[in-house]
Amino acid sequence: MFGDISPRYHPLTPETVPAYIRTRKELEAVFRPEDALEAVEVGDGNLNLVFKVWAKADPRRTVVLKQALPYVRLVGDSWPLPTDRARIEAQALEIHGRLVPQHTPRVYFYDADMYLVCMQNLIDHIIMRKGLIQGIKYPHFAEHIGLFMARTLGMTSDLVLDYRAKKVEVARFINPELCKITEDLIFTEPYRQTERNRFHAELEPQVVALQADTGLHLEVAQLKEKFMTQAQALVHGDLHTGSIMVNQTDTYVIDPEFAYYGPMGFDVGAVIGNLLLNYAAHEVRTTDPEKRADFRTYLTDTIIQVWQVFVREFQPIWDRADVIDMPRLYQQDYMRRVLQDTVGFGACKMMRRVIGLAGVEDIRGIESVKDRTTAASLALNIAVSMVKARHHITRIEEVVEMATAARPSM
Amino acid sequence: MFGDISPRYHPLTPETVPAYIRTRKELEAVFRPEDALEAVEVGDGNLNLVFKVWAKADPRRTVVLKQALPYVRLVGDSWPLPTDRARIEAQALEIHGRLVPQHTPRVYFYDADMYLVCMQNLIDHIIMRKGLIQGIKYPHFAEHIGLFMARTLGMTSDLVLDYRAKKVEVARFINPELCKITEDLIFTEPYRQTERNRFHAELEPQVVALQADTGLHLEVAQLKEKFMTQAQALVHGDLHTGSIMVNQTDTYVIDPEFAYYGPMGFDVGAVIGNLLLNYAAHEVRTTDPEKRADFRTYLTDTIIQVWQVFVREFQPIWDRADVIDMPRLYQQDYMRRVLQDTVGFGACKMMRRVIGLAGVEDIRGIESVKDRTTAASLALNIAVSMVKARHHITRIEEVVEMATAARPSM
Repeated sequence: MFGDISPRYHPLTPETVPAYIRTRKELEAVFRPEDALEAVEVGDGNLNLVFKVWAKADPRRTVVLKQALPYVRLVGDSWPLPTDRARIEAQALEIHGRLVPQHTPRVYFYDADMYLVCMQNLIDHIIMRKGLIQGIKYPHFAEHIGLFMARTLGMTSDLVLDYRAKKVEVARFINPELCKITEDLIFTEPYRQTERNRFHAELEPQVVALQADTGLHLEVAQLKEKFMTQAQALVHGDLHTGSIMVNQTDTYVIDPEFAYYGPMGFDVGAVIGNLLLNYAAHEVRTTDPEKRADFRTYLTDTIIQVWQVFVREFQPIWDRADVIDMPRLYQQDYMRRVLQDTVGFGACKMMRRVIGLAGVEDIRGIESVKDRTTAASLALNIAVSMVKARHHITRIEEVVEMATAARPSM
Repeated sequence: MFGDISPRYHPLTPETVPAYIRTRKELEAVFRPEDALEAVEVGDGNLNLVFKVWAKADPRRTVVLKQALPYVRLVGDSWPLPTDRARIEAQALEIHGRLVPQHTPRVYFYDADMYLVCMQNLIDHIIMRKGLIQGIKYPHFAEHIGLFMARTLGMTSDLVLDYRAKKVEVARFINPELCKITEDLIFTEPYRQTERNRFHAELEPQVVALQADTGLHLEVAQLKEKFMTQAQALVHGDLHTGSIMVNQTDTYVIDPEFAYYGPMGFDVGAVIGNLLLNYAAHEVRTTDPEKRADFRTYLTDTIIQVWQVFVREFQPIWDRADVIDMPRLYQQDYMRRVLQDTVGFGACKMMRRVIGLAGVEDIRGIESVKDRTTAASLALNIAVSMVKARHHITRIEEVVEMATAARPSM
């Protein structure tokens, strides 16, 4: 897991990709021997090289190569990071592909020496975050992601897996280094003064107040503990709108390299928290009040629907549960706890994206400092009200009520 | 983990033990080449062979060999069980020996092919359960076990271990087969009609009522879920008074073959639940009211003291915690949650010992059926009140108040 780098490992470049492709017989159905291949590096993440490769003669015959770097790309080689995450990603994609093939990119192969996954290039889709920033609605998204989460979370939990299979999976998906990134960047650094935080000076009074709030620290500490100890299901671990590719008909979930056995609410919260970050951004991004209200209603309706679909698609799992061992009261209690976790983790995801190292374009991409501060302030206020209310929340509508009631402080 | 049996494996017998001993140079400091050795099999557990071996010339030169059988001894070879538990036990003993050497038997060696641990023979100590049944008080027990649990649980948790070390330990102590025994025997079977339950007919009305109580099922389901998902610390996993050897000055914890990463309250609850089973047994075992009251006061004082020492010895861990990341409010909240888990798991341990397959001598050893029913009924009533009150308990004294207020139903 933390072993030496394979002697066969070398980072690819756009120049070396075509020759590498030729060595892989798994791609013989995609590329022909006579094809001239083109490749470009497009990684905008922090941890990996990502190459798109296509046949010059037919750009629709194409794949993506995702290769792990042995350090965090954004920070550089001062932050070494095991390449084991490529194995985690390949194995998680394999499970997702089995449970929800319609929402998972096809995997062609995993190269264990190169820490490289080769998969379907989603050429007809865009990163959902970019679409939401432009105010594009995705009418099927809630149905798709609700199903994706119900299947990938429910079917990898103790509710479905055999006692032994579950525990073997927990061990297989032990993912310390990427969990550590989450532990630090989501649950620790936003709540203290550190060099890596990235909020701008105008927001400082609000951040200082938040960092001095010991009641908030208690909630975050509880959520961090849950993240570190609760092996409930195989979570994606980074399910924000930048890990989702969409168009008007399809939804694909990519990049499960943070996958590990954790609390289901961490994934559901990531989706909802990122929709709310976008909601906050449209406070200033959309100036026409009618258009703004309309898109925000789309976002809040989507939040409600995501949860409702998740619950609906989870139902088949409960339907086969033993009602002595898991009485109805327990089933309701279980889903309520997942909702409360969702609210708590969603809030933490929002706060880290405003205060911490890795921001989101929804808010950090706003050019005017004043506008950016307004959106950031609103996002923080929504998040703080969520994290403090989470123990008492019983309906997803309460989250939407908190979001629509919140106002920016500055 | 679930591999084939080693070709070198063979179950020892008292006759083959001396020759085996001669092959182990780790024992050269214990036995001399000229020693005649004697061995006897004394296992009263369900999973293993246990041999005591000594030099005929000096019975104080002695060791114990504990060898895993590939099936559950009580049930026979219809219930196969991986011998991996011998590795788990040896590794847990190594950790306990490092953290609390004064309460851990010395390990001489672990033989991975024979699934065998060779350890100190505690010839000056008896199984605590047997002492308590006789009404013997152990004045240092609370201090010792409180320290043992604070160290072994606190020091193996995320509060102390490095993020990576903790997760590697979680994987190393994945222990599916023995966890499954707990999942079935403690959290499932007592709450339904199964062939393996072992209560006697007189108790049936009370058991039937308990098995029909869906509110109780909810609580047990939540606790089972916690047992199956919460990787909080390296728990002993079977810390009843039959896993503790004592005399008037010493306390040793043996048999950690059920060890895995689970909730701390599972161990603390095992200790307290078993003290309460003994408390219930003395309802009929001690007929002199004054003697009974006196011994029960010893037991309830011990319960309070066990928790107080646990909290006191846990304090050094909190003293070095980062107070931004883990504010005082969180520390108090954490200990309160461990207490509430303790009460819930303690209650489950009590119920299973009355209803389920493996009883305890405290109660099942009572000859008169009427008396046995009285003690069993009292134990169930204490347990049910505990498991239902657990969410609101904030002080250990409340547990004692519930125990002293409870009466047998029959």
